[in-house]
Amino acid sequence: MAAISTPGGTDTPLSQVNPSSQRTPPPPLQPLLEQATAIEGELTQGEDKSSTEVICCHSGDAVAAGRQPLTYLQQVAAICAYPTLLDAECMPADTKQRARQILQHLQGGSPGSYNLEYITDTVAKKVARYLEQRDNGIPSDPHCIVPCSGTASAMVDVVTLVVDERAPQPTGVLVPVPGPPLHAAAAGLAGAVAVPYPLAEEQGWAVAGEALRQVLRQARVRCHPKVLCIINPGDPTGHVLSRQSMEDIIRLVAEEHLLLLADEVQQERAFLPGCPFLSFKRVLWEMGAPLASTVQLVSFYSLSKGFGGGGFRAGFFELVNIDPSVLKCFYTWGMSVYPSILGQVMLEMAMEPPLPSDPSYPAFNEQRQGLRRDLAHNARRVQEVLGRAPGICCQPVQGGARAFPRIQLPPRALQQARVLGLEPDVFFCQELREATGVVLAPGSEFGQPEGTYHIGLSLLLPAETLERVLLTLTRFHAAFLHSFS
Amino acid sequence: MAAISTPGGTDTPLSQVNPSSQRTPPPPLQPLLEQATAIEGELTQGEDKSSTEVICCHSGDAVAAGRQPLTYLQQVAAICAYPTLLDAECMPADTKQRARQILQHLQGGSPGSYNLEYITDTVAKKVARYLEQRDNGIPSDPHCIVPCSGTASAMVDVVTLVVDERAPQPTGVLVPVPGPPLHAAAAGLAGAVAVPYPLAEEQGWAVAGEALRQVLRQARVRCHPKVLCIINPGDPTGHVLSRQSMEDIIRLVAEEHLLLLADEVQQERAFLPGCPFLSFKRVLWEMGAPLASTVQLVSFYSLSKGFGGGGFRAGFFELVNIDPSVLKCFYTWGMSVYPSILGQVMLEMAMEPPLPSDPSYPAFNEQRQGLRRDLAHNARRVQEVLGRAPGICCQPVQGGARAFPRIQLPPRALQQARVLGLEPDVFFCQELREATGVVLAPGSEFGQPEGTYHIGLSLLLPAETLERVLLTLTRFHAAFLHSFS
Repeated sequence: MAAISTPGGTDTPLSQVNPSSQRTPPPPLQPLLEQATAIEGELTQGEDKSSTEVICCHSGDAVAAGRQPLTYLQQVAAICAYPTLLDAECMPADTKQRARQILQHLQGGSPGSYNLEYITDTVAKKVARYLEQRDNGIPSDPHCIVPCSGTASAMVDVVTLVVDERAPQPTGVLVPVPGPPLHAAAAGLAGAVAVPYPLAEEQGWAVAGEALRQVLRQARVRCHPKVLCIINPGDPTGHVLSRQSMEDIIRLVAEEHLLLLADEVQQERAFLPGCPFLSFKRVLWEMGAPLASTVQLVSFYSLSKGFGGGGFRAGFFELVNIDPSVLKCFYTWGMSVYPSILGQVMLEMAMEPPLPSDPSYPAFNEQRQGLRRDLAHNARRVQEVLGRAPGICCQPVQGGARAFPRIQLPPRALQQARVLGLEPDVFFCQELREATGVVLAPGSEFGQPEGTYHIGLSLLLPAETLERVLLTLTRFHAAFLHSFS
Repeated sequence: MAAISTPGGTDTPLSQVNPSSQRTPPPPLQPLLEQATAIEGELTQGEDKSSTEVICCHSGDAVAAGRQPLTYLQQVAAICAYPTLLDAECMPADTKQRARQILQHLQGGSPGSYNLEYITDTVAKKVARYLEQRDNGIPSDPHCIVPCSGTASAMVDVVTLVVDERAPQPTGVLVPVPGPPLHAAAAGLAGAVAVPYPLAEEQGWAVAGEALRQVLRQARVRCHPKVLCIINPGDPTGHVLSRQSMEDIIRLVAEEHLLLLADEVQQERAFLPGCPFLSFKRVLWEMGAPLASTVQLVSFYSLSKGFGGGGFRAGFFELVNIDPSVLKCFYTWGMSVYPSILGQVMLEMAMEPPLPSDPSYPAFNEQRQGLRRDLAHNARRVQEVLGRAPGICCQPVQGGARAFPRIQLPPRALQQARVLGLEPDVFFCQELREATGVVLAPGSEFGQPEGTYHIGLSLLLPAETLERVLLTLTRFHAAFLHSFS
């Protein structure tokens, strides 16, 4: 943890950050990206490496993986950025019509103004209508929706609301393992502590109620658990929760007086027909009274997973069974809730896509369905190929954009990793990268059951690239097993 | 302060926000905007109001006031949002060339990806070169620059770094009065307390060293002051600090072991030829050793004031004399530093504008200079007209986008306001708005010396609108004085 220290020679290091601060720094988010970039740099400069191509298979960034944002969103955003394009012949008439409607709602007719009213009124209402359609008609109140700059900072804001820094015990936020580093980081930045709970690998990475209750019991010794974070569809696990499992979670949340923080950002990526995404809000509502009107829930949605891309910084969260006055906090505090207006324009379009009668509809629909189709194809191929590979085991992948297969590492490799001061899975990924250029995310970046090793593999790659990666990976792993046996 | 409370009937209100929490909620940011919107709504619905037009004169949002973002920035952003426009005939060749260069630096060739490297490398380097030009060649290190989503959340992050929540006394952040609510809000959200210090109205709202030292002495009883926040050019005061004044502040900061937090977001709006903007970094550097290499400074820049607009969410801050490892925090914590990439594209263009040889240069330069010229014209007219008005007194306005004249309110008006439970300046602004449709910001939104009353008046209005507003305001104020005398 770094410090802003005051000028040398003084006795009072006034501005020094206290290393024992409750706000624990989360783990670095992008170490592998940095490594991959470094290798790319070396390759460009002609260094002699055994591989000649870097294939990044670790990231959940769909656009970086070559999947462009939906054309319709691009077009309308471009017109809004430069409204003179309303008169350009190169733009389709229906996108111009749509952009014209949006610009009428923007102050000064431009996404350059802060446009607080556009966000809190126009966009929030369209989000509410979208959620009602998604949830089979269950009502959604625009006043309970907060459009925001994506999930990361919004989660910090939400957790901050339940943290009491003067309480004798720190506030606990239960986060799944494996899971992205984001949730533990958000808990730390909000002044809470992350309490990891294990997902059940043998049940396809489902949430295991008994394990969760045990973690809760143990956590109460050192903190005050107030928030349960659930990721559905799971990341990096690819598990989509069943209704039964969600009902169990909701009952647990009610019994234990927790706030349910539902990271549902991968909802557009539930690609398996037999495993549809169900929102926690819908399942809760359909459980009826008293739970439906009492269990407190915050659900997160992100534009980055499905329609647009993370670089546009747009998403929202919905508050369920939470006093509407809380919502006012987000606007009057006003920090994370001034999002990029062009991002909000794209969010509005994702919430109210072109109609089947619109000329832009066929391409829009094809691009949108294409993502799910490609993810489903890639998930199937990962399981087919890795299912035949000795020493690799992959649970079913039902949604999301990653597979998280378990890999066997021989004792001599573990020993070698220890000598190098590396996690064994990091050692494996480094060796793979050096030898083949394939960059995977080591399981330890997400957390994993002790004594097991995993790799995070992106499903966003083009199908033919994925085939090459799977071939390279299985061959390399076999050779790795051999050379360290 | 609102709360997320757990289901009724339980003894343990687990998730309740502690009202005595150190993180104090800042004052609402937009009350007048809401009122103006409400009036506009009423007018649309044909209610009988004595005014027929709402003129919003309170906001610093240049785009909302009708001043469009620079065309060159709009064009390049539009092409980056929809790269097919690279082949469109309706776009100027040099903007297409520029967009092509930018897209080459973006992952997946799109602003839809997270593009961390683009921000931390490409953009940071261009910012550094821009700062070197601005500061007469004083070196700027790209590794000390953090491109971000605008100033608000970035300030919270910076202040968070110096807050020690376990210390016996809270951390103090000195904020100027009058000033925007932002800085006190950021201090509160970071877990610190705001310590207001008065600016010297009779000296054109300059920073008064002796008053500052006195506030510091008194503050030490209840907190540990670590940060001095200075706004230059001043907002809402319009004061531009002299070199002498800045040197005095730097010496005070060194003696008192403070971190200097320089809000220099209005720097593109220093419009008076005799009062040029000087950065704190430059003045500090030119003071030489030992101060130049020891005083710690964080300086904020925003795209919203000059080139673009707040809705694009782009800015940066530069760290001076601060351990570079601190910078790493912002990226590994990674919360507020994932900005909108289209905003960063615009920031890059602001930092490296078209060259005089580029076809887009003349229009770009004219739009950029036009803002300063119009602000200078409006500032002069405000002083001319209000200088003649009995009971109104306006200090010289040298920069920024607001004037902050003092208005005399008669005792009977003060009494009437007390009866209504309103601040006297709020009462005046409400009466003005009801009678004329002119919406001003009451001085109490920014803070003001006790027993004095001010109004915040935007200089971003078109010249002819401003003339009408000045006429309306002086007539109404004269009538107000009369009717309450």
